[in-house]
Amino acid sequence: MSVIARVLAAFTLGALLVAAAPSPAGDLRGYTAAGAKAEREWETKFRAIPSPDSLREYMRHLSARPHHVGSPYDKANAEWLLAKFKSFGLDAQIESFDVLFPTPKERVVELVAPTKFVAKLQEPPVPGDPTSSQLAEQLPTYNAYSVDGDVTAPLVYVNYGVPADYERLARLGISVKGAIVIARYFGSWRGIKPKVAAEHGAVGCLIYSDPKDDGYTHGDVYPRGPWRPRDGVQRGSVMDMPVYPGDPLTPGVGATKDAKRLAIGDAQTITKIPVLPISYGDAQPLLAALAGPTAPEEWRGALALTYHVGPGPAKVHLRVKSDWSLKPLYDVIARIPGASAPDEWVIRGNHHDAWVNGAEDPISGQVPLLEEARALGQLLKQGWKPRRTIIYAAWDGEEPALIGSTEWVETHADELAHKAVAYLNTDSNGRGYLSVAGSHSLEQFINDVARDIDDPETRLTVWKRSQLRAIADGRTPEARDSARRRPDLRIGALGSGSDYTPFLQHAGVASLNLGFGGEDGGGIYHSVYDDFKWYSTFSDTSFVYGRALAQTVGTAVMRLAGADVLPYDFTGLAETVGRYVREVEKLLKDKQDSVREQNRQIDEGVFSATNDPREPLLPPAKEEIPPFLNFAPLSNAVDALTRAADRYEKALTKATANGGAALAKPEAQALNATLLQSERALTSADGLPRRPWYRHQIYAPGFYTGYGVKTLPGIREAIEQKNWKEADEQVGRVAHTLGAETDAITRAAEQLEKLAP
Amino acid sequence: MSVIARVLAAFTLGALLVAAAPSPAGDLRGYTAAGAKAEREWETKFRAIPSPDSLREYMRHLSARPHHVGSPYDKANAEWLLAKFKSFGLDAQIESFDVLFPTPKERVVELVAPTKFVAKLQEPPVPGDPTSSQLAEQLPTYNAYSVDGDVTAPLVYVNYGVPADYERLARLGISVKGAIVIARYFGSWRGIKPKVAAEHGAVGCLIYSDPKDDGYTHGDVYPRGPWRPRDGVQRGSVMDMPVYPGDPLTPGVGATKDAKRLAIGDAQTITKIPVLPISYGDAQPLLAALAGPTAPEEWRGALALTYHVGPGPAKVHLRVKSDWSLKPLYDVIARIPGASAPDEWVIRGNHHDAWVNGAEDPISGQVPLLEEARALGQLLKQGWKPRRTIIYAAWDGEEPALIGSTEWVETHADELAHKAVAYLNTDSNGRGYLSVAGSHSLEQFINDVARDIDDPETRLTVWKRSQLRAIADGRTPEARDSARRRPDLRIGALGSGSDYTPFLQHAGVASLNLGFGGEDGGGIYHSVYDDFKWYSTFSDTSFVYGRALAQTVGTAVMRLAGADVLPYDFTGLAETVGRYVREVEKLLKDKQDSVREQNRQIDEGVFSATNDPREPLLPPAKEEIPPFLNFAPLSNAVDALTRAADRYEKALTKATANGGAALAKPEAQALNATLLQSERALTSADGLPRRPWYRHQIYAPGFYTGYGVKTLPGIREAIEQKNWKEADEQVGRVAHTLGAETDAITRAAEQLEKLAP
Repeated sequence: MSVIARVLAAFTLGALLVAAAPSPAGDLRGYTAAGAKAEREWETKFRAIPSPDSLREYMRHLSARPHHVGSPYDKANAEWLLAKFKSFGLDAQIESFDVLFPTPKERVVELVAPTKFVAKLQEPPVPGDPTSSQLAEQLPTYNAYSVDGDVTAPLVYVNYGVPADYERLARLGISVKGAIVIARYFGSWRGIKPKVAAEHGAVGCLIYSDPKDDGYTHGDVYPRGPWRPRDGVQRGSVMDMPVYPGDPLTPGVGATKDAKRLAIGDAQTITKIPVLPISYGDAQPLLAALAGPTAPEEWRGALALTYHVGPGPAKVHLRVKSDWSLKPLYDVIARIPGASAPDEWVIRGNHHDAWVNGAEDPISGQVPLLEEARALGQLLKQGWKPRRTIIYAAWDGEEPALIGSTEWVETHADELAHKAVAYLNTDSNGRGYLSVAGSHSLEQFINDVARDIDDPETRLTVWKRSQLRAIADGRTPEARDSARRRPDLRIGALGSGSDYTPFLQHAGVASLNLGFGGEDGGGIYHSVYDDFKWYSTFSDTSFVYGRALAQTVGTAVMRLAGADVLPYDFTGLAETVGRYVREVEKLLKDKQDSVREQNRQIDEGVFSATNDPREPLLPPAKEEIPPFLNFAPLSNAVDALTRAADRYEKALTKATANGGAALAKPEAQALNATLLQSERALTSADGLPRRPWYRHQIYAPGFYTGYGVKTLPGIREAIEQKNWKEADEQVGRVAHTLGAETDAITRAAEQLEKLAP
Repeated sequence: MSVIARVLAAFTLGALLVAAAPSPAGDLRGYTAAGAKAEREWETKFRAIPSPDSLREYMRHLSARPHHVGSPYDKANAEWLLAKFKSFGLDAQIESFDVLFPTPKERVVELVAPTKFVAKLQEPPVPGDPTSSQLAEQLPTYNAYSVDGDVTAPLVYVNYGVPADYERLARLGISVKGAIVIARYFGSWRGIKPKVAAEHGAVGCLIYSDPKDDGYTHGDVYPRGPWRPRDGVQRGSVMDMPVYPGDPLTPGVGATKDAKRLAIGDAQTITKIPVLPISYGDAQPLLAALAGPTAPEEWRGALALTYHVGPGPAKVHLRVKSDWSLKPLYDVIARIPGASAPDEWVIRGNHHDAWVNGAEDPISGQVPLLEEARALGQLLKQGWKPRRTIIYAAWDGEEPALIGSTEWVETHADELAHKAVAYLNTDSNGRGYLSVAGSHSLEQFINDVARDIDDPETRLTVWKRSQLRAIADGRTPEARDSARRRPDLRIGALGSGSDYTPFLQHAGVASLNLGFGGEDGGGIYHSVYDDFKWYSTFSDTSFVYGRALAQTVGTAVMRLAGADVLPYDFTGLAETVGRYVREVEKLLKDKQDSVREQNRQIDEGVFSATNDPREPLLPPAKEEIPPFLNFAPLSNAVDALTRAADRYEKALTKATANGGAALAKPEAQALNATLLQSERALTSADGLPRRPWYRHQIYAPGFYTGYGVKTLPGIREAIEQKNWKEADEQVGRVAHTLGAETDAITRAAEQLEKLAP
């Protein structure tokens, strides 16, 4: 599921020192000097093992046939992965779940007026691409978790179909009530489009891939180039995952054989209206048949036509019917038991299911995981003994709704609450720059790892290459200055779009999502053309970035698993939360200013004076100016958090001095138990308003963005939705959560101070 | 020629007071109280006369057949206009010139490899549009003043073909030496494209209209909508007018029968390489046949293809041959002699020649001019006696190179130097907002006029509507604040693109260019579809904006012709020149900063680190950091100018007090003689470097923009071209020129102070 996730959650590259700046607390954070030396030797051995040829052969095998949930090859891949893990010497097993996963039985899209056109809804095989012709096994083009439906209605073009687009339609005087909307992909996660359309009264939804977004505008189309061809379709889930991901019938609990299940009709996350995805080949006649106002400038795609909004005269018939039976999931779980702290788990995962052959998504991320496991297996044979337990997971059912990971987390919730140290996720991988997002308590840690990995194209470290790009991308002198001087590159915050979500946002496990990209453009996402032929022709063709990913994540896993003291850093977390606080304060102020300005312009007659009578717009309505909110509790909480983080950092520096023998004392175990709870302290048992499954108070996918992150989500979304009372409450709740985090860090600092008094 | 000119030189709307702010110096600037009252009464009578029905019938007649230079209907129109002026009671005559105007004899564009395609180079008639089928009289699609040539060469796509595009090509490692370039229209005046291509060694140039710029991206194409259809072609001149406009064979002197003429081969302004314009229908197969790098993102148009840069494998054959005989021009000149100051001339003009039928360009501007003349004729019969002489001019030969106006100005140069008060130009007209650009000494004057004209759509004054749009367009609180508080709307500066150029930039006559627009989009510019059918269906269909233009310009003419003291204001001029000075200072500083930053990034290895090996770019070269320049003489000159302007303004306020009888003293004649020289003082006899024809030191068309203005052109272009020695010299020259202006204004202030001591 991750191409879009990678784009949205990608490295918000801040930057850093011109010379690599090692962690301030010793050579390897949380290690004694001797331990660091040994660790570095093992890591060096590890990084020599992963092989591009292995990666290529794994990919060739895993993407050889379509392997979506419920398909024969999905199960075959799980069993093959199981055998591989075992052959590497790891203790592995398959965990199974039974989950609701609809597959299409009937799909119709046709223009019924003013002319007739029947959409073909079919991606043709491409000569020279052998797997593109496996028609019998391919899942047809569809959006999973669309409700069944059969509707005929006038068509309205809604751009990306996000809330702002409907505000624009309102200014144009156009309602989608009773209409079928056609939205283009991008601009939001796809599941938002039917959700918002239904909220506005639409009866159906089509989603198409405009060539401006991932087609010929960007480059040659497949097979001449990597971009989406005329008949290429983006499949994908439209489940309302911002409410909860995973099996719609078992929210909050594992979908085991005998789990209590909701009736399908009671599942909150299935769409309210029928939805189908189409190609631009199928979309063109529909869009060409629209009249009504010319679409606003930013709405216009790259088809050779004038984009009109409608409604009509284009009238469309849309019919969707699915097989709603339960399907089996196969999570493959491998373990390396910890030598001295077996109840502290470092978890590393990538999904193995795809929409079709999925060479890029997810196999390009799955094969480095497998190669890491092979390398760790070799180290074990050479005598390497990780302090903590390492779990390698190949998830099933990610594409429909992060199901394999979600059900596993829900099933093992109690254990994870006490044992999980961190979750490291990858998904698709490509050429270019290391992209990292996740928990800011791991920001410094992952920067240190990135300083030890070589970029295959430039022979710089991946960290250095990212820093130089941050300088190149810096649009202001301030941004470039920050890129040059900040010791660590900033990592992005996580929304959703891959398997970290249940770990981070439900279970409160510190998480990272990693991948290389930025030089790997293309338009085969979720189509039959995402296959070995495409990947080995256009993406990481020599698999050197696959190797770099294995080196990066494997190093991170080893270093987390081996540290005497868990290498969280809270000063970066405190600084980042402080930035978020300033952002929400600015969000409110900007809203106040813009409402005040708009009201003034309404009074001045600006809107009527600038209204072109041949392209009339309705004036906006006057609004109440948003009230001032009391952000003081939040600022105080950030101040306290900062002080606690500084105290912990000082204690760690002291404990690390002179070889850091203090870190190896037996009392460090209790300290680690405290540290391990620090990310959990950022959650609230009640979760977010109207979506209690999401418990993290700092990071969540946006209710109206889907994958895109909202930081301080309770506060930020209340302000965005103009719910001032809720915003006020959420300020209190987040301040309280930050207080709990401050307490945890203070406790850890006290424990550390006792280790090295 | 003016659609692009209107876009480029349009009202850079600044803004003003919420209540209309009359000129500070009395009710009408430069009038006694009694004179103002009488003037207002005559103006009110005047504005009641212009009739939309007359405008429509004039347009129907003047655009009934193609009327380019040398065509039978061009001459017929001149004679019809002459008869009209005479019928209105004006003293009118035709002034004739013989000028070089090439017309096409052979035109070939064909793709010769890798496949064959012959461009049709023909705009088909449109059913329901009667004049589009006048094939026998239409000028074929071509670019006038292209040199003859016959070349076959690989094709390179160069985006808009401006210097920055060639810098980008250099980074891509691509040279156009020996190639035929294909550039799209827009981004510069068209004549820049072959000029810059030839400077880089290209052997031929095609210019096409991409639908992203004026085709289906914007709206439905003709005849369903107003935008450029598949086979529509933009004709136009590619003469090197930034060197000098007018007849290429008679630079600086009138092209009278017995003028001394250059040999064609010695004319500096004919292109160095052959050029032809083509439609996007003809361009598509050529662009689709290009390989090489994918075009940079901003270069991509709206055709349904991936834009590649080339060179090749597309190979093109281009052949152009013209009839280079002299053609006759017919300027129609009408006069209303001044009652008391016959040697002070207010000149008002619009061209009458077109590329084909030219309903919009120029007839939509010509017909208000004619209606003004009719109305003034009626006032004369009612006893109105303008103080100054008024000249109404319908120019021929504007489309090829502003020839009719240029030759007339050059012929009457001596007289104009002593007599010209102001030149008021219009060209095409449409629906929307009043757009004004010109001499800033007239900024306050034209704002006052705009406060007296009703907008036909909103019933606000055109001034108020423009102010409200400036508020709507203000992107920052500062911009909106300025829009709300500045007493006058800012007017733009004039580059080139219509007949004001010889008046303003050669003869130093204070000039304004006016027109309505902003709601009149379309893509028929310089095509056969710019005709009565198009205009009366899609533009100012009820001709109410034609009436508003006649009311605006006619009022301005009357008010200028009747004032006791010429209503120039120098405080706005001084403020504006001060802004220009700060702009060129910032231009230098920005260049220093960007060179410094780029050199640093080269040292840091940013370019090699971020270079994608599959889309390689050459690194930029290190550059010398631009030196600091001494701008002090300029700042001192602006200070002195500001003091002189303030002194004059104070004197005028005093002279206007108590009914302003002082203004009516006979000595005001000498004051007016001084004032009339104030714009002349802004010129330098030597002109600009390498183009002495352009004498104005504040405004000029850019040497590499064509129509787009460069203010303080000598300094600004020297900095842009990194010619630091010349920049330094030009600072001195402009400071000297501002000193001359200060002297003239000081002289005027002294004269005024004597009138009202």
